[in-house]
Amino acid sequence: MALADRWLLPDGIMELLPPQAKQVEQMRRKVLDLYHLWGYELVMPPIAEHLESLLTGVGHDLDLNTFKVTDRISGHTLGVRADMTPQVARIDAHRLRTEGPSRLCYCGSVLHTHPANMLASRNPLQLGAELYGHSGPDSDVEVISLMLATLDAVGVQGRISLDLGHVGVFSQLMAVADLEAQQQADYQDMLQRKALPEIDRFVATLGLAAPLAEWLRELPRLNGGTAILDKARQLFAADAELMKAVDYLADLAVRIEARFPTVDTYFDLGELRGYHYHTGIVFAAYTPSFGQALAKGGRYDNIGRDFGRARPATGFSADLKTLMDLSGQLVEQAEDVILAPAGEAQDLQSAIAKLRQAGQRVVQRLDGETGCEGRHRQQLLLEGGEWVLVDL
Amino acid sequence: MALADRWLLPDGIMELLPPQAKQVEQMRRKVLDLYHLWGYELVMPPIAEHLESLLTGVGHDLDLNTFKVTDRISGHTLGVRADMTPQVARIDAHRLRTEGPSRLCYCGSVLHTHPANMLASRNPLQLGAELYGHSGPDSDVEVISLMLATLDAVGVQGRISLDLGHVGVFSQLMAVADLEAQQQADYQDMLQRKALPEIDRFVATLGLAAPLAEWLRELPRLNGGTAILDKARQLFAADAELMKAVDYLADLAVRIEARFPTVDTYFDLGELRGYHYHTGIVFAAYTPSFGQALAKGGRYDNIGRDFGRARPATGFSADLKTLMDLSGQLVEQAEDVILAPAGEAQDLQSAIAKLRQAGQRVVQRLDGETGCEGRHRQQLLLEGGEWVLVDL
Repeated sequence: MALADRWLLPDGIMELLPPQAKQVEQMRRKVLDLYHLWGYELVMPPIAEHLESLLTGVGHDLDLNTFKVTDRISGHTLGVRADMTPQVARIDAHRLRTEGPSRLCYCGSVLHTHPANMLASRNPLQLGAELYGHSGPDSDVEVISLMLATLDAVGVQGRISLDLGHVGVFSQLMAVADLEAQQQADYQDMLQRKALPEIDRFVATLGLAAPLAEWLRELPRLNGGTAILDKARQLFAADAELMKAVDYLADLAVRIEARFPTVDTYFDLGELRGYHYHTGIVFAAYTPSFGQALAKGGRYDNIGRDFGRARPATGFSADLKTLMDLSGQLVEQAEDVILAPAGEAQDLQSAIAKLRQAGQRVVQRLDGETGCEGRHRQQLLLEGGEWVLVDL
Repeated sequence: MALADRWLLPDGIMELLPPQAKQVEQMRRKVLDLYHLWGYELVMPPIAEHLESLLTGVGHDLDLNTFKVTDRISGHTLGVRADMTPQVARIDAHRLRTEGPSRLCYCGSVLHTHPANMLASRNPLQLGAELYGHSGPDSDVEVISLMLATLDAVGVQGRISLDLGHVGVFSQLMAVADLEAQQQADYQDMLQRKALPEIDRFVATLGLAAPLAEWLRELPRLNGGTAILDKARQLFAADAELMKAVDYLADLAVRIEARFPTVDTYFDLGELRGYHYHTGIVFAAYTPSFGQALAKGGRYDNIGRDFGRARPATGFSADLKTLMDLSGQLVEQAEDVILAPAGEAQDLQSAIAKLRQAGQRVVQRLDGETGCEGRHRQQLLLEGGEWVLVDL
């Protein structure tokens, strides 16, 4: 590699310099303090561990997105984590083994082999919260509320919209339709692309009974405001499981809207994000100025199973660096920095230490250093045997 | 991998659970706040980048200790950082390009292929501070002082001792002795092992002039308290460069002792740690209860050269997890957590929000959840139409 290129970062790898690094640190603290106040305990899983542990209970996408290395000590394959959620599930299942609900949160760097989209970073600073050991709307409402409170705490600008889906709708349709594996894969693919005419033609070839064919045709169209739930109720009236999923979403939305009146709620019953591991609701938060989800999550009740302990689980995650980009909170103004003279003159060190103890930022000039007064408003000077602050 | 092993971490890979994770987070904040008050700016380099960038200006050891992966996007080899110091040097040299001195600090996970010793973690949480753009004792005194202030801030227990060395002594001896490359490598190896009889025999074979032979024989014996500097001054009187290095150390020690009267200072003129990249003083802090250095650093004026900008540089680093293990600061007592009832009953959510805004930790009970009163001292109850706190 040429000298000129040696300082370039790989495509999609980003780093934070002053003052952005400080802003991210402030946000990190704000968010972790918020989680603490909600009763969530911080965990710090390692940046690399056995690949099997990192990929347990998750889809093929995460496998492709994980950098692998060989552990020279054991010969095993290790992965550099691309997602911290499976690590936190492992901690709940094996390290903590709490009997009742456990609330865990985390914040750390992850690494992706490929960016999630053209503009995405390959090294997000992932933060999130997970609630284990409880099934039902209360825990889903809690984590969605905490996600929305996170966006509020870091000052994300613009009106927030919340997209809600339920992968139980798709699972139940597939169970009832009893399609072959390839047919199911084809339908799933079309659904994710919302390829309406293609779906219509495909469903026609299946020769399904009337309501079922209509259900498969209508699923990709079931997205929008609350009216969509009424439409879904009329459509799915004949199937108790489908009705249960719709009612679950309706209940959730009413509760979230009461707690967050300024958030717009949308529904997408054909949303399949993370179908491989999600088992109930899926949700994501958006803001108009950003094309991707700011934060997302869902229920994934089986994630602990491969660690030998299937517990109900629901949670969300976000990239703190993305949140910083979208935050309206300005980087703190360059504060007053006090300039102290060089050396060990009598009592100078204790005068500096006292100022710092009082929360003042003090830079001690280095021998021979000149011309850095610009950043400073005050300097420490010896006057009449005492160290005093003098305006510059 | 068998189910039973899937939750095991690889040898030497460690993670932090509650309450240790929170303690490390508190220490992280304390230390970064300290660095801020000393005028150091936070940077957050990525956990992986081009291998050439990570290994620039450093020794072979770091290469062996770095996990490598192939970037599927560019085909280049990336490294997962084993040390953040070269990253911060790259940032100073190319990203910031400050003219005067620049003060940078960092805290992040690194990954090692092998543990530094039997008990060491392979994924330390490295924290450190670097001062670029100044030569001379003032900057060395500043970073050593900040290192000792770090140990004080995190409450490391036991008397701290500071080991000081100067790789300029070894460099000058090698320049004067004009040994062949292999002879120099042999001597360096014996010196690092402090293999005294071996060194005596080896020096006898070299046929060097009298003072030089004595210098090479005596170097491994030049370690101990201040008296060692007097011995070195007598020994090296004929060589101005050697005398300069000894005087530099003496000056440094006087200034550090004045600032930190409870720290014991030791000298080791044959210390070669990081000889490949250090160019001046090297230093390390110890405490009696721990066999390894708690924190260490030195001057490495050439580290920016391979990034096209050689700047004077001095700094130190430590593993925050090690500091936590040695800290006398107790994990915060389990605080009072307030238990709130489940649901959306009138004004319940705003009563909870008000408590959290006031810094109270509130867990809202989930539907069907029982038996978690043990952790709580108070609960939120509706009495006479108002939400009030009642002791449990």
